Amino acid sequence: MVVVSSLRLPSLTSLFFASSRSTHRAPATLFRRQQPYLAAARFSAQSAASSSLPETTEELAPANQKKSSNSNKVNQDRVITPRSQDFNAWYLDVIANAELADYGPVRGTMVIRPYGYAIWEAIQDYLNVKFKETGHSNMYFPQFIPYSFIEKEASHVEGFSPELAVVTIGGGKELEEKLVVRPTSETIVNHMFTQWIHSYRDLPLLINQWANVTRWEMRTKPFVRTLEFLWQEGHTAHATPEEAEEEALKMIDVYTKFAYEEAAIPVVVGRKSREETFAGAVRTYTIEAMMGDRKALQAGTSHNLGQNFSRAFETQFTDENGQRQHVWQTSWAVSTRFVGGIIMTHGDDAGLMLPPKLAPVQVVIVPIWKKDDEKAGVLNAASSVKEILHSAGVKVKLDDSDMRTPGWKFNFWEMKGVPIRIEIGPRDVASGSVVISRRDVPGKQGKVFGISMEPTTLVGYVKDKLDEIQASLLAKATSFRDSNIVDVSSYDELKEAISQGKWARGPWSASDKYEARVKEETGATIRCFPFEQPAGTKTCLMTGQPADEVAIFAKSY
Amino acid sequence: MVVVSSLRLPSLTSLFFASSRSTHRAPATLFRRQQPYLAAARFSAQSAASSSLPETTEELAPANQKKSSNSNKVNQDRVITPRSQDFNAWYLDVIANAELADYGPVRGTMVIRPYGYAIWEAIQDYLNVKFKETGHSNMYFPQFIPYSFIEKEASHVEGFSPELAVVTIGGGKELEEKLVVRPTSETIVNHMFTQWIHSYRDLPLLINQWANVTRWEMRTKPFVRTLEFLWQEGHTAHATPEEAEEEALKMIDVYTKFAYEEAAIPVVVGRKSREETFAGAVRTYTIEAMMGDRKALQAGTSHNLGQNFSRAFETQFTDENGQRQHVWQTSWAVSTRFVGGIIMTHGDDAGLMLPPKLAPVQVVIVPIWKKDDEKAGVLNAASSVKEILHSAGVKVKLDDSDMRTPGWKFNFWEMKGVPIRIEIGPRDVASGSVVISRRDVPGKQGKVFGISMEPTTLVGYVKDKLDEIQASLLAKATSFRDSNIVDVSSYDELKEAISQGKWARGPWSASDKYEARVKEETGATIRCFPFEQPAGTKTCLMTGQPADEVAIFAKSY
Repeated sequence: MVVVSSLRLPSLTSLFFASSRSTHRAPATLFRRQQPYLAAARFSAQSAASSSLPETTEELAPANQKKSSNSNKVNQDRVITPRSQDFNAWYLDVIANAELADYGPVRGTMVIRPYGYAIWEAIQDYLNVKFKETGHSNMYFPQFIPYSFIEKEASHVEGFSPELAVVTIGGGKELEEKLVVRPTSETIVNHMFTQWIHSYRDLPLLINQWANVTRWEMRTKPFVRTLEFLWQEGHTAHATPEEAEEEALKMIDVYTKFAYEEAAIPVVVGRKSREETFAGAVRTYTIEAMMGDRKALQAGTSHNLGQNFSRAFETQFTDENGQRQHVWQTSWAVSTRFVGGIIMTHGDDAGLMLPPKLAPVQVVIVPIWKKDDEKAGVLNAASSVKEILHSAGVKVKLDDSDMRTPGWKFNFWEMKGVPIRIEIGPRDVASGSVVISRRDVPGKQGKVFGISMEPTTLVGYVKDKLDEIQASLLAKATSFRDSNIVDVSSYDELKEAISQGKWARGPWSASDKYEARVKEETGATIRCFPFEQPAGTKTCLMTGQPADEVAIFAKSY
Repeated sequence: MVVVSSLRLPSLTSLFFASSRSTHRAPATLFRRQQPYLAAARFSAQSAASSSLPETTEELAPANQKKSSNSNKVNQDRVITPRSQDFNAWYLDVIANAELADYGPVRGTMVIRPYGYAIWEAIQDYLNVKFKETGHSNMYFPQFIPYSFIEKEASHVEGFSPELAVVTIGGGKELEEKLVVRPTSETIVNHMFTQWIHSYRDLPLLINQWANVTRWEMRTKPFVRTLEFLWQEGHTAHATPEEAEEEALKMIDVYTKFAYEEAAIPVVVGRKSREETFAGAVRTYTIEAMMGDRKALQAGTSHNLGQNFSRAFETQFTDENGQRQHVWQTSWAVSTRFVGGIIMTHGDDAGLMLPPKLAPVQVVIVPIWKKDDEKAGVLNAASSVKEILHSAGVKVKLDDSDMRTPGWKFNFWEMKGVPIRIEIGPRDVASGSVVISRRDVPGKQGKVFGISMEPTTLVGYVKDKLDEIQASLLAKATSFRDSNIVDVSSYDELKEAISQGKWARGPWSASDKYEARVKEETGATIRCFPFEQPAGTKTCLMTGQPADEVAIFAKSY
């Protein structure tokens, strides 16, 4: 049996991430809203297909596509930068090699390629069912929003106006009122809710939409932060503040379960600080995930909007006593950013590692033969194994191409993060068995010989193994997370933890000013006040005053 | 048993389509591309909730929302304009009453409401599976396209430039190059294909995306023509012209089967005339549907693009002989317009009529009781019937609200187009049976008493009935279509047929100039040269010259 441990990967088609954008650190004063842009934006990689870019688009192409134009090397072997050496370069290499995404012609935009899109589809499939189970209906709002709408809610306009894309020309004419390409839909949703909601009988109103949104980001990174991205945004209206709060909590709980059970990401769920709350919300709940470089990724948020938007848009209802009241609202979202979170949580030096429940391919079958007279028997057996697994609902792919060696295929599918590989050679055919390897356990340890091809046995074994891998990824990520959260009781301890790249957890009741100071001095922000709080009295690590809660501080994407 | 035949419908929430946009007829010279805008754009309806519109948005609100502001009448009973009296008013009334869509704040935009969106989801569910079965992968391209891209293909820019929405400001700054909000994605797809395709081994490349697109339409109509709409667009690249042609035909066939088997719409499938071919295509195949007013609706198209875009974008591959070649391409699309086609094909004076296979609710259960002591038994039985049908995979809704009478509910769900209604009263409970009514057969004729509640019997009966309704809608639409297509052999006969509102089918080999003349003089265009052609020699109805084919002429949306 061939075991290949080299990381040198031949590229299947071309590769799109080029090198040489230098490392930046944005000054803290540029940070807006809840997402400080601390992430270094260095792009890495080896070669680019940029020589084929039409000349007129050169100016719009990402800078990193311009410098290197080594298109002759397009088909040469590829190396993934070791994760420990340069996490960001590793991330971009994985995205390029696994063909998850590519840069669009407009700077900051991303093309989501089929393999990356299939992960997003798996996310959609799960969440869509959960949203409907919790009473929400899908619908669709226009993406063009009159500019005046954005200005109606004071903190909303402050948060979003710096990053708007604006349509000023339509049908060849200058528009009388400029149109904003939606950065989020609270304003247009409220405009419509105001027309649909009349009495308490129309409440709660629970809707969701799957859509693209646009935010003119200066520092982009595939999946994590792009000029246009895909998401779902839920919007609800309620008769009481209690119901709105319950809804906001219910949806962050849906996200939390999704993260743990499907993505195998042990997020920390909690409440954002006032400073980090969504522009227009009363309270923001968040799930924060620890990436492989120990930076935090805000992976989903649920906002209690209170009456901020209903007052701005006069969204009122007549209550049971005949009184006019403003509705209480929520909104909540998960985006294609989550795909980035999956890559950066589970991936290793060999490439992507996908949790079985979200993997587009759960099992890859690699047939192995040397002599021509072995080929038919091996391929036959491989096809029948494929059929057995497919019928049992396993997402299976048979890689029976003649053009690549088994060793190449092993590497390739490992790099693509497929949880289980099945090898079938002539001796396996003779013994009616297969060899099964786990993506998450490298080398011999993860390899089991002699699993029977008999359908019941094989299907049972594969399904158990998929469950085991799913659980194992979560356990590994949980242990990584827990060993990198440090309890701190003073600002010095906090600084020490952050400087080591860890998350710091400590009692906090200090003012926004102190929060800003931490950000400025350490680069870390309050990721959340976690729902899970230690017992006992607490003393604010900054002021020494009594504190009700611990907060988690970390650098973040 | 209450039988209600009145068409007076109380509104559940508010109603959004207001009156008083006058009837227009656009001059023929304004027609662009393959979609002549002959449709009268008169908007009808009774009341509007416009008084709740924030003042600053008044200018952007559709004209029809501005004039009438009879918001006190919002909750009064609603009447659907009879279809025969004013087809367009009827269409808008149905959309408003069935809560399929609403106007967005920007003129020409549409909010797709949950019930309308659920029909679109049913369309997506079917097509998405078919696209994957035929080898296509979903992915996602950015919606912002550099303006220069649009200009690369000569006829493409000519076709689309008048209706572009253009982003000129991003992140607070004037952009160096303006960005087009995608009206369709051939250009950006080719820009990326050029980077991904290197050798014949990379072909065929078969992808699809579900996305929103923007076309600055002057004359809009919900679903049929809106400034922004939802669609899928398939894009493929092939090594030979034969393969591209085969693909274009394969996908129009997928659409045709969908129309017949799912939407119960007996489309005529054929080839567009040169004049009506997609801007940038070599050949366009189309499915043309006859609406209830006998106007044609282009319901889906599949384009053989030849090498037009691959030459403009230098999308080349190295063939098996080592020669560089331009790829051969196709694109194909179906949009939310199809929802409009379903409404206008099957609806009647009572409202919407949905084909069972696409209906968000296939069966509605209306429990009926008079005395309080009957209520529990009736509701119990209704719940158990619901559970039986739900378990069998039927989309079922139990309307057990206390607030409305059974008669109101009958009307309401008829108006919503639900194929089957089940009534359960105290006597039915006693006899263990239900009453079943068909939406498509009005009155007593469509009503059957005494269907047993016993699960096997009930499920079998309901499923058979759904199949019967599906087949019956198709048969009815087919017979309507066939009785409204007239074979013509002279221009006079053609004019006569068109003036009667019918479709004219006759031999055609005349020039584009004659085609333009027909359009100008009759308002009709060549909808297609149908695949199904009569046998025998043909003489062009216009010139008397030999003709190879008959063409179908009709007025259209």
